[in-house]
Amino acid sequence: MKPQKTLTTKGRTLIPANAQFQSFERCHSNKMDCIINYPSDCEFPIQNLPYGVFSTAQDLRKRIGVAIGDSILDLSKISHLFDGPLLSNRQDVFAKSSLNALMSLTPDCWKEARTTLQSLLSSKTNSSLQGQTEVFVKIKDATMHLPAEIGDYTDFYSSMSHAYNVGCMFRDPNNALLPNWKHLPVGYHGRASSVVVSGTPITRPVGQVCPEGATSPNLKPSSLMDFELEMAFFIGGSPTKLGERIDIEDAQNHIFGMVLMNDWSARDLQKWEYVPLGPFLAKSFGTTISPWVVTMEALAPFIVPNADQDPKPLPYLRQNDNYNFDINLTVSIKPESSGIKSPVSRSNFKYMYWTQKQQLAHHTVAGCNVNPGDLMASGTISGPEPESYGSMLELCWKGTKTVNLKDGTTRKFLQDGDEVIIEGFCLGEGYRVGFGQCAGKLLPARQI
Amino acid sequence: MKPQKTLTTKGRTLIPANAQFQSFERCHSNKMDCIINYPSDCEFPIQNLPYGVFSTAQDLRKRIGVAIGDSILDLSKISHLFDGPLLSNRQDVFAKSSLNALMSLTPDCWKEARTTLQSLLSSKTNSSLQGQTEVFVKIKDATMHLPAEIGDYTDFYSSMSHAYNVGCMFRDPNNALLPNWKHLPVGYHGRASSVVVSGTPITRPVGQVCPEGATSPNLKPSSLMDFELEMAFFIGGSPTKLGERIDIEDAQNHIFGMVLMNDWSARDLQKWEYVPLGPFLAKSFGTTISPWVVTMEALAPFIVPNADQDPKPLPYLRQNDNYNFDINLTVSIKPESSGIKSPVSRSNFKYMYWTQKQQLAHHTVAGCNVNPGDLMASGTISGPEPESYGSMLELCWKGTKTVNLKDGTTRKFLQDGDEVIIEGFCLGEGYRVGFGQCAGKLLPARQI
Repeated sequence: MKPQKTLTTKGRTLIPANAQFQSFERCHSNKMDCIINYPSDCEFPIQNLPYGVFSTAQDLRKRIGVAIGDSILDLSKISHLFDGPLLSNRQDVFAKSSLNALMSLTPDCWKEARTTLQSLLSSKTNSSLQGQTEVFVKIKDATMHLPAEIGDYTDFYSSMSHAYNVGCMFRDPNNALLPNWKHLPVGYHGRASSVVVSGTPITRPVGQVCPEGATSPNLKPSSLMDFELEMAFFIGGSPTKLGERIDIEDAQNHIFGMVLMNDWSARDLQKWEYVPLGPFLAKSFGTTISPWVVTMEALAPFIVPNADQDPKPLPYLRQNDNYNFDINLTVSIKPESSGIKSPVSRSNFKYMYWTQKQQLAHHTVAGCNVNPGDLMASGTISGPEPESYGSMLELCWKGTKTVNLKDGTTRKFLQDGDEVIIEGFCLGEGYRVGFGQCAGKLLPARQI
Repeated sequence: MKPQKTLTTKGRTLIPANAQFQSFERCHSNKMDCIINYPSDCEFPIQNLPYGVFSTAQDLRKRIGVAIGDSILDLSKISHLFDGPLLSNRQDVFAKSSLNALMSLTPDCWKEARTTLQSLLSSKTNSSLQGQTEVFVKIKDATMHLPAEIGDYTDFYSSMSHAYNVGCMFRDPNNALLPNWKHLPVGYHGRASSVVVSGTPITRPVGQVCPEGATSPNLKPSSLMDFELEMAFFIGGSPTKLGERIDIEDAQNHIFGMVLMNDWSARDLQKWEYVPLGPFLAKSFGTTISPWVVTMEALAPFIVPNADQDPKPLPYLRQNDNYNFDINLTVSIKPESSGIKSPVSRSNFKYMYWTQKQQLAHHTVAGCNVNPGDLMASGTISGPEPESYGSMLELCWKGTKTVNLKDGTTRKFLQDGDEVIIEGFCLGEGYRVGFGQCAGKLLPARQI
């Protein structure tokens, strides 16, 4: 963050001139008083400030907001207050119906936006947002939408425990990781059109399934429905050109923020279809993400050491800084019949083997271009312990074990009416940076 | 095509009222006189009328045009002439910078547009486009752009000879086709951002390659650069909803038109990276398509019987009409050093095992949604004879044979400076419906 030398205020001024950056230092401490009251375990304190796209029953326009406490600050109504040196002529990005334009700016711009928001929301700056109820909406009164127009969606496979578990189940423990796995972040192109926002119901897919021992398939509803606990990041910065690559040292300038993801999977469809070109319909019937994009600035205090990588990767994948994050993750199942929510997996993003910088450096090394709003997912995040496995496939170990729910029922795979809820948060000193929910209910298959 | 009962003419009238549909019958015969002169072997006669997006040095706006002879009819200048009953209130789709809005309409609208254009261009209708040189641009003076904003791109693998050849090379001839291949159109999600229009140079990609017998890879420029002869269709119609499927009987309403495609492939990168999730960087450094979208109406006279399918596919993939097309395809290599163009493959779209209707019915059976402008490619189109193989991998049979060029040089894979040119046409009685060129030159790798 460069020092703020000159500040110009254009348009209507809601706060006293030059006041908004006065408490800059205080805003960066852990104790930040906010004009919106919230409890200490609130997911959206002033240290978080995630961006999302919302509408209300009274105003159906999709618009950008920032979550604060139990409320949303409607940026479409205060875009003129982003009057720092970098954003004063890019206030338009806050008045769009998606985050793509904001994502397309530079990290310096994102930081300036964050500083402006923290100042506007601070109770120490005499912010005239205080009492301006018309710029706030209660989260419970808002409908959330996809935060960005997703041009392309890529899914990596970067948790070693998950890759190892799958290898053990479908090959053998001595040969669990394929030869390329520790040399490159394995990934594949996913379907962008079927990425949906939390709350969207998912219909159990119908597809070709080949019974064990049979040589020809049937068309039937999947009977091995699974979740995959993932996180994903949104690409930021200017679009890159075809043929250019993003060096690992530059990768941070193209990583805007993160969301939770459920990469719903139909294991029986997947098994039959995926050879030799990879997953296709077994994944593209729906992929759920959480609506709030938590920025990398908000996550910076929660950086932890990268995974040890042995063998050492090729130079283009070597990074000399830590870019792994301590994000607590929980997956719960809430059956429709009982309404009782049962945690079934407790994992952490820090179990990733490959960092997001490595993923991005690899994705572009051969010249693939990326655009702001592209989504890059982690792959299933499993930890080393069985309770931290990130899919039912692993939790029930290919159907050989059952998972107990609090309502007394058991699961191997998902049942119709099950709502899968992924939650995540970082724990700071006296505050938490949360991601909200990534939730979706599984609806029965339609008739064949 | 419903009969034209009432015609309203809005805006400036270039042609006499009600004149444009007078010669409707004549326009559908093979002998159609056009106000633009062209030779009998012209790719873009009045029977073709493919849509594209172009700009000129004098007018940099991207706008929609229709190729006719050696010219482009600038639809942005005559959108008000689409005054049939269906299009008179959707003239806006002709004034856009991409074809997505036109694609999003119904087949009845597309047919009405075609009839209007044939009437406007007919020399029998006293069309007042005659002599209106300001609405025409010479193709040689235009810069072509991607015809649509491609939301998602899918690549199938639907030529049996190609799948068989690859299986023979990498497995064995007795086990060449994998068990699922004859039961479903195998496909995978490709990268939409790296689809480029003909004429865009492609940089030889750099990536991880694992030498034969080694256990760890190097980062190096691909030395096994290949083309893949493909065709692709653009999705039309309204966006479908997640969870809904397109029945095979309805598939035709979602197929707008076709282009030529070169799915550039780096075989050495592909070999190392593709297990278990499929091709990734080996394909996403560039995929070239031809700029002119030939509509399904223009291709209708060239329908030929579907491939015999044994075993019979599941009911959702059965169709009772023919939807295979006799499209002659040629791949040529033109080395930079000699400038001499050598055909290296002569194939035909009719060699497809799975039809585009089957591909689309399968793609959506599990609930994946599709949008107008999505691109769905055939996979490499190889015929049964060696000269009809659609990739260097097959033509040189994994490096065991050489391909001779007219300039006296030979190839196993592509060399820097090689321009790969795909061309295709349908032969009618006294006319041809051509696709133009899908061309791209391979540039040397950038420094590592």
